[in-house]
Amino acid sequence: MAIELYWGSGSPFAWRVMLTLELKGLAYESKLLEFSKGENKAPAYLQLNPRGKVPTLKDGDFVIYESLAIMAYLDRRHPEPPLFGATAAETGLIWRAISECESYLVPAADKLIRPIFFGKGLDKVDEIEAAAQTARQELKTLDESLSRSGWLVGERISAADVSVFPLIQILSRAASKEAARPLNLRLLPLAQTYPNIAAWVRRLEALPGYEKTYPPHWRETT
Amino acid sequence: MAIELYWGSGSPFAWRVMLTLELKGLAYESKLLEFSKGENKAPAYLQLNPRGKVPTLKDGDFVIYESLAIMAYLDRRHPEPPLFGATAAETGLIWRAISECESYLVPAADKLIRPIFFGKGLDKVDEIEAAAQTARQELKTLDESLSRSGWLVGERISAADVSVFPLIQILSRAASKEAARPLNLRLLPLAQTYPNIAAWVRRLEALPGYEKTYPPHWRETT
Repeated sequence: MAIELYWGSGSPFAWRVMLTLELKGLAYESKLLEFSKGENKAPAYLQLNPRGKVPTLKDGDFVIYESLAIMAYLDRRHPEPPLFGATAAETGLIWRAISECESYLVPAADKLIRPIFFGKGLDKVDEIEAAAQTARQELKTLDESLSRSGWLVGERISAADVSVFPLIQILSRAASKEAARPLNLRLLPLAQTYPNIAAWVRRLEALPGYEKTYPPHWRETT
Repeated sequence: MAIELYWGSGSPFAWRVMLTLELKGLAYESKLLEFSKGENKAPAYLQLNPRGKVPTLKDGDFVIYESLAIMAYLDRRHPEPPLFGATAAETGLIWRAISECESYLVPAADKLIRPIFFGKGLDKVDEIEAAAQTARQELKTLDESLSRSGWLVGERISAADVSVFPLIQILSRAASKEAARPLNLRLLPLAQTYPNIAAWVRRLEALPGYEKTYPPHWRETT
């Protein structure tokens, strides 16, 4: 039976899973939910995912949500190419990079993205500057790591790259918005601030299937 | 070469790794860091873990930190008993439970534990009540899940149980403190509020090696 993916345009967590599906060469039926229409809170969807979040993946009768769980599931079910490492050390370092992303970059990005995209809490300048400082520190660490190798762990793309990349893209997009200008985030232009991240972004954007994963509403508006 | 574990008494994240080591039957050298003496910020330790957090595991020359990464590393290196599932579906569900713990329970627990243990921010009653509400909701979901099976995923202990359990223990301990009384958290007694969680806690406490993992300073004070 076909894989079905429930996702939302611009969700970095859904984006991770779309990239995983492309890297694994897996076909899937796209179920794009419109958050503005409350489709993620519709009873039929809440039956699949009681939290009403995206992404959710349905593989035959099996339903799984939480982006990292979906990625781990797909990697175990379709082991080639391996995204969680070929050795115990790689596995550990990949999950370390993912854990650091979840614990430090995701909360900081969230505190920046929400005010910029939705205009709420733009006056909380101290909170925003603290989040920007965390984001800059995490990006610096990533940039240093990417100065030593083309990918975050080892010599090929892994779940670490796939997990971190959509956060970088959404942060870059937020930082480029008009509403971000007075915040002085000092994140852009990426090629100057974090050149190794910028080169890595270009490598990821060049992957086959990348265009299919690009958030559709990002094409419509700048 | 021997495994070395750097940990702190009462850190739920270090506790996860200690339980993993016991379940895998792995001997290790205990390196207990005293946070009150700043041992986690000492230059030699920052060389191992630049974030100055615990746990950190050293296995020969290989150093790994972030609790879930250490667990994934140990499971890959010492596959028996498997803690991340025997099938793709189990792997997915285990990581789902872990992700939900990290995304919802950990931040809520943090907002409750800090004020109670350290007396800071006890006046932020709205924030504390919001965190308590999230904690109660997550515990309710866990309790329902544990009404169907003795373990969070499948029919045996997994990394999901190991990851969630220390959070439940530290939350219970915080909720039992004198400072928690005016907060009306409504989490205890666990046997009444969440009977299936209480029974699961007793099962985990009965595991061989459990006593070795119990935070030493919790024995000294109530």
